[in-house]
Amino acid sequence: MNLIPIGDPQDPRVAAYLDIRERDLVGRHGRFVAEGKVVLDLLLSAGRFAAESALILENRLAGLEGVLRKTPADFPVYVASGEVMDRIAGFHMHRGILAIGVRGAPRPAEVLLETLPANALVVVLVGISNHDNMGSIFRNAAAFGADAVLLDSTCCDPFYRKAIRVSVGAALKVPFGSFGDTSSLTATLDRLGFSQFALSPRGETDIRAAERTSRLALYLGTEGEGLPEALLNRLRTIRIGMAEGFDSLNVAAASAIALHHFSKR
Amino acid sequence: MNLIPIGDPQDPRVAAYLDIRERDLVGRHGRFVAEGKVVLDLLLSAGRFAAESALILENRLAGLEGVLRKTPADFPVYVASGEVMDRIAGFHMHRGILAIGVRGAPRPAEVLLETLPANALVVVLVGISNHDNMGSIFRNAAAFGADAVLLDSTCCDPFYRKAIRVSVGAALKVPFGSFGDTSSLTATLDRLGFSQFALSPRGETDIRAAERTSRLALYLGTEGEGLPEALLNRLRTIRIGMAEGFDSLNVAAASAIALHHFSKR
Repeated sequence: MNLIPIGDPQDPRVAAYLDIRERDLVGRHGRFVAEGKVVLDLLLSAGRFAAESALILENRLAGLEGVLRKTPADFPVYVASGEVMDRIAGFHMHRGILAIGVRGAPRPAEVLLETLPANALVVVLVGISNHDNMGSIFRNAAAFGADAVLLDSTCCDPFYRKAIRVSVGAALKVPFGSFGDTSSLTATLDRLGFSQFALSPRGETDIRAAERTSRLALYLGTEGEGLPEALLNRLRTIRIGMAEGFDSLNVAAASAIALHHFSKR
Repeated sequence: MNLIPIGDPQDPRVAAYLDIRERDLVGRHGRFVAEGKVVLDLLLSAGRFAAESALILENRLAGLEGVLRKTPADFPVYVASGEVMDRIAGFHMHRGILAIGVRGAPRPAEVLLETLPANALVVVLVGISNHDNMGSIFRNAAAFGADAVLLDSTCCDPFYRKAIRVSVGAALKVPFGSFGDTSSLTATLDRLGFSQFALSPRGETDIRAAERTSRLALYLGTEGEGLPEALLNRLRTIRIGMAEGFDSLNVAAASAIALHHFSKR
């Protein structure tokens, strides 16, 4: 292993880790931050994204040997004391495990769709702007074997540090692609043989009665306004039945129920 | 309406609202804070807990008339400018709607159970220590008509401000009670005719095959360690089937799937 001790928080080799929270806001020029052992392991195992380096708290190193062995011999593992690490990150990093990954070129949804198998479950997100919800939806997508997540341009970034953390790394595992125009995506999915269901509190069919088809796309919208009316008019709509007097469900919870339902073969 | 303008952040009449975040940590002596229009409406409509007062940003008052009309004529509605409100709360309160409620005496789980109808769905929580998860589980319990939530002594407080906010008020709606010893609770539930299911990644039965009985108790444990082994040995265990290579589900997401499943009559 290529262990590199870091004593100076301003060392240019760890510049990518400086002031993490401030950098979250301005973006990372094609990079992302992975935090914690589980996420680092997933980044290195899944192999979908290149890892550039890791920054590890010195007393966490021993527990990470198995994970770090998955990297090439020259992969830089920067090692710092708690004090130096906190000064690099700009706040107290109690996890003590960070890595920088490379995003690669963004994939258009249409290109990603062409790569999917005959049996495929796809999640289509419209206007999901909360990083907690985004991360949770990816986690559920991974847990129930979704093949891809497609995001419209009003969705937030799944590579945002908090989204990756909440997803427990699923944002680095489940392939995702972006689309601009919803009508043209709907047409593409139709052409590719996908049944298309939109989840809505006012959906016409109870989800228990909606059957899995070999290729299925599930649309989820924002919690407040839901999916756009024009889209709901074009798709089959399904609802999750709730108790009278409290018909309020978080969009990530709704995704868990719907993906679990449609994951049944 | 009893509108009381507040100009001085140190006014003793709004002492209950001072330094909200610091007070979260030390507790509120039998009080809780409700935030936002939806939660305030639920507090006043559900009537389970007495409301003591409200503190409203002056420009939010007009939109709240319908909600505040549910209070007695002498109910104090303190009204403040944005600047005064932020200085009272100790941070920027962009919602601008706060209320203080009274917790009342804590209810033992055994007492609460005696009040339940012949058809009842009960959630039993063991070691849920994260306020986000706690709030989300209550929200799902309300959405799927659970009759009660029972908490062991290692669970966090559902009246914590963030838990109430994340629950969208469900923590003020779904009755809950506390228990000390899990074995004695299990015996009580058994005596009262409850089928008892423990959710576990290693559960013996797929949840799709678990049928709703008229009285049913669903046990949920912490995300990391899960339910204690001794408890799993005593109960019927069910699992939520997941994809190979990513068997990781947030406990609140698991509660959504399980409660939706068992809410079917």
